[in-house]
Amino acid sequence: MRMAMIGLGRMGANMSRRLRRGGIEVVGYDRSPEVVEQLAAEAGMVPADSLEDLVERLEAPRLVWVMLPAGEVTEACIERLAALLDPGDVLVDGGNANYHDSQRRAARLAEAGIEFIDAGTSGGVWGLDNGYCLMVGGSETAVERLAPALRVLAPAPDRGWAHVGPVGSGHFTKMVHNGIEYGMMQAMAEGFALLHGKTEFQLDLAQIAELWRHGSVVRSWLLDLSAAALAEDQQLAGVAPVVADSGEGRWTAIEAIDQGVALPVISLSLAMRFASQDREGYANRLLAMMRNAFGGHAVERRSASGDSPAAG
Amino acid sequence: MRMAMIGLGRMGANMSRRLRRGGIEVVGYDRSPEVVEQLAAEAGMVPADSLEDLVERLEAPRLVWVMLPAGEVTEACIERLAALLDPGDVLVDGGNANYHDSQRRAARLAEAGIEFIDAGTSGGVWGLDNGYCLMVGGSETAVERLAPALRVLAPAPDRGWAHVGPVGSGHFTKMVHNGIEYGMMQAMAEGFALLHGKTEFQLDLAQIAELWRHGSVVRSWLLDLSAAALAEDQQLAGVAPVVADSGEGRWTAIEAIDQGVALPVISLSLAMRFASQDREGYANRLLAMMRNAFGGHAVERRSASGDSPAAG
Repeated sequence: MRMAMIGLGRMGANMSRRLRRGGIEVVGYDRSPEVVEQLAAEAGMVPADSLEDLVERLEAPRLVWVMLPAGEVTEACIERLAALLDPGDVLVDGGNANYHDSQRRAARLAEAGIEFIDAGTSGGVWGLDNGYCLMVGGSETAVERLAPALRVLAPAPDRGWAHVGPVGSGHFTKMVHNGIEYGMMQAMAEGFALLHGKTEFQLDLAQIAELWRHGSVVRSWLLDLSAAALAEDQQLAGVAPVVADSGEGRWTAIEAIDQGVALPVISLSLAMRFASQDREGYANRLLAMMRNAFGGHAVERRSASGDSPAAG
Repeated sequence: MRMAMIGLGRMGANMSRRLRRGGIEVVGYDRSPEVVEQLAAEAGMVPADSLEDLVERLEAPRLVWVMLPAGEVTEACIERLAALLDPGDVLVDGGNANYHDSQRRAARLAEAGIEFIDAGTSGGVWGLDNGYCLMVGGSETAVERLAPALRVLAPAPDRGWAHVGPVGSGHFTKMVHNGIEYGMMQAMAEGFALLHGKTEFQLDLAQIAELWRHGSVVRSWLLDLSAAALAEDQQLAGVAPVVADSGEGRWTAIEAIDQGVALPVISLSLAMRFASQDREGYANRLLAMMRNAFGGHAVERRSASGDSPAAG
């Protein structure tokens, strides 16, 4: 079997390596020629120097996996592929696209006779060795064609991948997965903060995280990762208290509103990330002023430039 | 090694069985004589017919594990044991006591020369075969004496149990563990509710839960349990939407307030359980009336007895 991989970043490169290990021929393209050369040399990937070149190196009906950042980059690539591919070809988006976009793109590609698959992919940098969890949306026939690759990418041929429903359902399922991830991470982080705050017990948080990995109700892969991080440095001295978010959490919260379903903890986990990103602190400054206004409570002052807090 | 187990409910009975499998002599007592007889016959436990009898069947210095419901029952038992045990004996509370109570009880027992250990125990009904996760607070010497039993109760002799700190720290750590559990459970439940609500995709929630168990970021023991439950009946038709809480979540939320540490997701997970338990719905009824008052919005009526809702 031969297929293409477009985008050889952390995810696309490791997935290409795993596909090669599984005996699948991979034609690879990335905007960086060095990355393409590297994977060609290291993993026996067939290098392509453009999308046109990549399409030519596959025989119809083609199978093309796109693994790019969601949004503009993915949109532009799929637009170009729509013009290059032939009816009967299958285009897979393995990135973290919004499922509404995937539904729209599938409709657009269908006009050209091209089948679209949305393959939500979890596993991060560990996927190369552990395998990826793949949530796949698309038609029966298209997913059937992709199945040999899915069996190699997943942790085992019969585990960790599934055809969950029609186009859109793969990215929808991945979105919800990430929403759950936000909530689980936040719960775990809050618990460790409470342990950390109990100074009188002088708890060893690395010891406790490791302990919980065995036989406890909270054992989980996120705990495994936390235990490894805490074993390195449980003061987390070099880490700023700022948590990024990458879109999936926002879409989950919006979906909850669209459905009219209460997702309080997932939505709040997202809000806590926003709060961590908020260097301006406008709401808190206003709250401090209100307390001052009605009760004469002291307000902590800082310079007008905002960069040097000082008691006042 | 010989030790006593007081309280042979689900947890105490299975822990006695696991101790017996590990070659430890167990003298067991429960208020129900049938349970004592059963375990004596089945697991070779030494039966005791009273606390006095149990104490007599151990040689000083004794090792007594109490595995009873937290609160009054545990308090009364420890009070009686304080009068029966001798200086140098070790009393272990493996239940879900509030750590403040454990600190108080330890001080009370210390007056009589009795050592106290608080052993937070996780693992539920699966602990018999998988082993228990044990978070142990107490003195070095007392925990040293208990260690052979801990090595048998844990998933492996060197894993899943730890001496985390002084008296109180074991139950404190278990309390935080359960707080994290509340948040993780709520996040997962919310995510599945969102999948459930997306009727257009006709998702198979059992398939997705099983899928996520392999290679995904949310893989966890709670997901394993959810997958098994959803495989049985993903409509959960026979389950009422009411979630009990057993104290540990409340104490975690209170501890957060005592420390002045933000635990928004864990505290909210607890509040969502309260909301699920709220059959009266007073706040929601008042909200409906307010909307009606300022905007003339329709209010759903029910009979004054509250038991038969009807549109109105």
